[in-house]
Amino acid sequence: MIIVLKQGATSEQVRHIEARIREWGLTPHVSQGTERIVIGVIGDEDLIRSRSLDMLPGVESVKSILKPYRLANAATKPTRTVLTIPPVRPGCTPVEIGGDRVVMIAGPCSVESREQLFEVAQCVKEYGGAVLRAGAFKPRTSPYSFQGLGHAGLDLLAEAREKFELPILTEVMDTRDVERVAQVVDIIQIGARNMQNFNLLKMAGGCGRPVLLKRGLSATIEELLMSAEYVLSAGNPMVLLCERGIRTFEPMTRNTLDLSAVPVLRRETHLPVAVDPSHGTGHWDLVAPMALAAVAAGADALTVEIHPRPEDALSDGSQALLPESFAGLMLRLADVARAVGRTMGTVA
Amino acid sequence: MIIVLKQGATSEQVRHIEARIREWGLTPHVSQGTERIVIGVIGDEDLIRSRSLDMLPGVESVKSILKPYRLANAATKPTRTVLTIPPVRPGCTPVEIGGDRVVMIAGPCSVESREQLFEVAQCVKEYGGAVLRAGAFKPRTSPYSFQGLGHAGLDLLAEAREKFELPILTEVMDTRDVERVAQVVDIIQIGARNMQNFNLLKMAGGCGRPVLLKRGLSATIEELLMSAEYVLSAGNPMVLLCERGIRTFEPMTRNTLDLSAVPVLRRETHLPVAVDPSHGTGHWDLVAPMALAAVAAGADALTVEIHPRPEDALSDGSQALLPESFAGLMLRLADVARAVGRTMGTVA
Amino acid sequence: MIIVLKQGATSEQVRHIEARIREWGLTPHVSQGTERIVIGVIGDEDLIRSRSLDMLPGVESVKSILKPYRLANAATKPTRTVLTIPPVRPGCTPVEIGGDRVVMIAGPCSVESREQLFEVAQCVKEYGGAVLRAGAFKPRTSPYSFQGLGHAGLDLLAEAREKFELPILTEVMDTRDVERVAQVVDIIQIGARNMQNFNLLKMAGGCGRPVLLKRGLSATIEELLMSAEYVLSAGNPMVLLCERGIRTFEPMTRNTLDLSAVPVLRRETHLPVAVDPSHGTGHWDLVAPMALAAVAAGADALTVEIHPRPEDALSDGSQALLPESFAGLMLRLADVARAVGRTMGTVA
Amino acid sequence: MIIVLKQGATSEQVRHIEARIREWGLTPHVSQGTERIVIGVIGDEDLIRSRSLDMLPGVESVKSILKPYRLANAATKPTRTVLTIPPVRPGCTPVEIGGDRVVMIAGPCSVESREQLFEVAQCVKEYGGAVLRAGAFKPRTSPYSFQGLGHAGLDLLAEAREKFELPILTEVMDTRDVERVAQVVDIIQIGARNMQNFNLLKMAGGCGRPVLLKRGLSATIEELLMSAEYVLSAGNPMVLLCERGIRTFEPMTRNTLDLSAVPVLRRETHLPVAVDPSHGTGHWDLVAPMALAAVAAGADALTVEIHPRPEDALSDGSQALLPESFAGLMLRLADVARAVGRTMGTVA
Repeated sequence: MIIVLKQGATSEQVRHIEARIREWGLTPHVSQGTERIVIGVIGDEDLIRSRSLDMLPGVESVKSILKPYRLANAATKPTRTVLTIPPVRPGCTPVEIGGDRVVMIAGPCSVESREQLFEVAQCVKEYGGAVLRAGAFKPRTSPYSFQGLGHAGLDLLAEAREKFELPILTEVMDTRDVERVAQVVDIIQIGARNMQNFNLLKMAGGCGRPVLLKRGLSATIEELLMSAEYVLSAGNPMVLLCERGIRTFEPMTRNTLDLSAVPVLRRETHLPVAVDPSHGTGHWDLVAPMALAAVAAGADALTVEIHPRPEDALSDGSQALLPESFAGLMLRLADVARAVGRTMGTVA
Repeated sequence: MIIVLKQGATSEQVRHIEARIREWGLTPHVSQGTERIVIGVIGDEDLIRSRSLDMLPGVESVKSILKPYRLANAATKPTRTVLTIPPVRPGCTPVEIGGDRVVMIAGPCSVESREQLFEVAQCVKEYGGAVLRAGAFKPRTSPYSFQGLGHAGLDLLAEAREKFELPILTEVMDTRDVERVAQVVDIIQIGARNMQNFNLLKMAGGCGRPVLLKRGLSATIEELLMSAEYVLSAGNPMVLLCERGIRTFEPMTRNTLDLSAVPVLRRETHLPVAVDPSHGTGHWDLVAPMALAAVAAGADALTVEIHPRPEDALSDGSQALLPESFAGLMLRLADVARAVGRTMGTVA
Repeated sequence: MIIVLKQGATSEQVRHIEARIREWGLTPHVSQGTERIVIGVIGDEDLIRSRSLDMLPGVESVKSILKPYRLANAATKPTRTVLTIPPVRPGCTPVEIGGDRVVMIAGPCSVESREQLFEVAQCVKEYGGAVLRAGAFKPRTSPYSFQGLGHAGLDLLAEAREKFELPILTEVMDTRDVERVAQVVDIIQIGARNMQNFNLLKMAGGCGRPVLLKRGLSATIEELLMSAEYVLSAGNPMVLLCERGIRTFEPMTRNTLDLSAVPVLRRETHLPVAVDPSHGTGHWDLVAPMALAAVAAGADALTVEIHPRPEDALSDGSQALLPESFAGLMLRLADVARAVGRTMGTVA
Repeated sequence: MIIVLKQGATSEQVRHIEARIREWGLTPHVSQGTERIVIGVIGDEDLIRSRSLDMLPGVESVKSILKPYRLANAATKPTRTVLTIPPVRPGCTPVEIGGDRVVMIAGPCSVESREQLFEVAQCVKEYGGAVLRAGAFKPRTSPYSFQGLGHAGLDLLAEAREKFELPILTEVMDTRDVERVAQVVDIIQIGARNMQNFNLLKMAGGCGRPVLLKRGLSATIEELLMSAEYVLSAGNPMVLLCERGIRTFEPMTRNTLDLSAVPVLRRETHLPVAVDPSHGTGHWDLVAPMALAAVAAGADALTVEIHPRPEDALSDGSQALLPESFAGLMLRLADVARAVGRTMGTVA
């Protein structure tokens, strides 16, 4: 940490600051520039961060030197993390996320019925999706909106898993549900609205399943990494980060999909990175171009929503692809993946 | 809901849309403008909202007519809601929030020790604060930061309540803690990061205590009201909304305190409105001017953080007022409150 | 325009509103819904927009039906606009922007010297760039920063144009310079900070050159189109829109490149769309992934900055590609362009 | 400037960086921390800033020590700047901005006609406004909207100035108009959309009149001060900064009025600070609470829009106060000004 003193800071102030720093078990290092005195603070980083150095008399500003994420930091782990989802049953292929193959995670926004889920799961399977996703517990802005089928939805997902031999992913919103959901699904999702639900993150850190962690609507990339750090430091190394759009002033899209987060995350962390162009845009006709762009930018996985009759969907119909559009998208994605030196789809 | 058709929408499309609307048990009402066909959709609002009307063929856009919040809507309840916090013990005065008197809710960011809490509580009591606030469960960006004293902190708060005869407020972050916290405190707080933790909101709706609900960092005012709607519709009419700063591009303040939310909320809802200038600005020297401004803008309550030695604080030291600054602020607030026809402080 | 009345609006208010609407030469059309009265306003759209209908007594909200852009609107022109830059001299190929070929516009941020400009121009030419860009008049946040070589820079650009047979593009910031700059360059640029410099837009509308119009840092897509409308309605149909990053809360990138603007613009307007990944990210290592993503998302052109010695650059060195990185990028762009059914580079 | 090296930076990299720094005529100062090497760069600040230090090999990040604004910096001028507007004619009182008295600048959004302007000017005069403001040149998002009366509007303003003995303020949008406008008005305004129209700022720096400089829709406070620096460094010390709302995601207000900018600016600069609650909110019913809040927060001046018949206004009718509301507001403002130790209105 570096402390910049105000112009005209007195030597008494400097001595006071040095004394406080030593009192905390840290070492001060005073430098005199042309216009300012600067004090480096050397010692245990957590200890340094825990103090409000800017409250010391004569201080103008405080500059942080080290990045606050450690386990997630690319500098601490030389190889990229590849998550392995074990085969649904013996004989099935495991799914790897973070390798050369770009992974498609697809399904309906919500589980609405066995018929709807299976129709979509069939489509995911057929066109090369690797993981089936669907919501059983739905975070909805309005208490009057469909809240998901809950545990009944989870049971249907488990059925679909067996029938279509696809690993499944669903969101968990409540610390009380983590254990049970983790017994059923292959990947648990922490949604954007819960990215800083720290108790949920701690639970996810002990659940034994890979965690897809979505970036919050107004979360910085650093905050996303700090939330990953909660999961990692609780003992779970299997985190898949997901850019899903941030909130900006632009009203023509539901969110602003920040694709530059993909290369930034690939530089900052060893964890794999997914992109959700469905929530990221909120409109079905923007999903395909942004999915293609995400792969071109280096995403390791995509999550895309599909519905056979979008206008009847109980949630987020506007952003759902029709099964036939999904099929077409998979073909185009394979071309772009190849152009950037990767592959796409579960079929070689 | 009003559906605007694309230029050149065909009469077949119009018939199809009318048919689907009728199929859903709703009534279409087609109007021909100079340049566009517009279809009004009449019927149960929840039903209308549940459909993705923009996915119908030939639709350009869909305009909502009614506000989605009902119980929170000023139009549905002619009188303003006044929350009454019962006296801490017989003989003490109850605290009313939403009346003529502007209420000061103050205390340290976190409970750190009995000594620290009591020193601040004494100051709150002495200078006219009406409610003591302090965090026992702390939402921290980093897993390596102080996470609060938890239930031990809650016990200290309960002690302070008795000793200083001040009602107490603390944040609850986990559905598993709501019941126990509600037994101890007078007001529970749902923090900004949990504004859309819908299960927590539902629990708060059944906890029997007033709920201070903070606006999320990137939540619109409408979303804040929808989160209040979760609490209200679960049977708890006692909600205090709190503006605490939104996230913008400006780096000189921790957040951008959106004081215009105060008059907007006073127009849109009957619920009382608080302002948190401590989190809203993140810097102690901005707290006083923004607290004064909040009262001038019409706030019903303020929440302010105090620490006897801010540079040693275990959380948010930079935004803490010293006890003597708090004392001075209370005097100035009383003057501004009077200037806008209200009073401030617990002493008449 | 549709006026939604407040719950409980009186019939007297309805009559008053109808009377005012008629007084303005417009036609009101009153509908009674289940919960609200809605009044459609029919007539000349400009006239309707010029009034503050929300100020009429009893009005809750006003909903716009038509899009405010006309000449830029995709609905008003069935074919996509292709801009043709005439050959630099007889025998050279013209450059088309908006066709199958994705166009690379590249060069240094600023003209610094003949040597620097020519070194970069040589690289642009050699690796398949179609247009040479460089700033002579520089908009700089600080008055103490390099402000560009001005007209001397323009002269060097004109020299480079002849020598390398590349059409040139430069920014114009002042109404007083438009005419002279337009005599020299092939494309004039209106920068992000001047997107709503309406007099400059009007001048650009009469300059006889294609105009690259950059989206403002906080401009909505609709506002970008309205600024294009200024140029178009002043008689210049040759506008190239450019997404160059918007301002958000994220500090790890200089701006947030909103690639979803590409498919949105391709839906909303017939005008071609460029992307600037250099300003859009602010970091050289993010330029390549975002350039690839932009082409995958459907961009018609890219603008990219190059500098032979970035740390010595007089402006924006951090986002400049080295010549060899530019060469590598061009190859990868060609692959992605092919994957989405287009071509890239000037050489077939 | 402080350079933080990457973990594992080599001693060769350190030597290379030191050599480049010396080559530029600057002095490096290397420190070894527990985890990182840090290099302080000492010497001429402008020179340091002109280099892209982050492009040097082995550099992780670069931290700025000094604030980039100098003339505007509170540290460089110990006394607050008070702008004095000379009396309109001998015998009239001069207007001081930045002293104890809070100054009201009020008038219609646009000059529409002599009748409308005079009706509003009469109201401004009568109820204690100190300066009459109105737009002659209007920056409008749409080319199809009313663009102002231009020079004819300026003539009407000059007439009103004489008749009502009020100094006048109007916006100038084009470098070609600055000289002429400055001959007529007492204060020139640089609008939010032109805050970074640097040539216009330079012209304003030579115009001999006080300049009201509005913060851009997405400008940081630092950028606002740097734009002021353009005016100041061009020789004009008379700048009045104006917070007028920034662009955020919140749709219930036209902009988000960032009142915390007031105390931040009062700390960072000696220049006086105005607030525009009309543009800052966009709704007439929010103007009064936010005006009161602005004075409580420490604003030196307010600018407020008035229209006798808002629904007929040719621009921004929704945010205009009726004359009678303005009269009421002036009384309430006087009370709040008094509560914070100031006065309001031109009449003592």
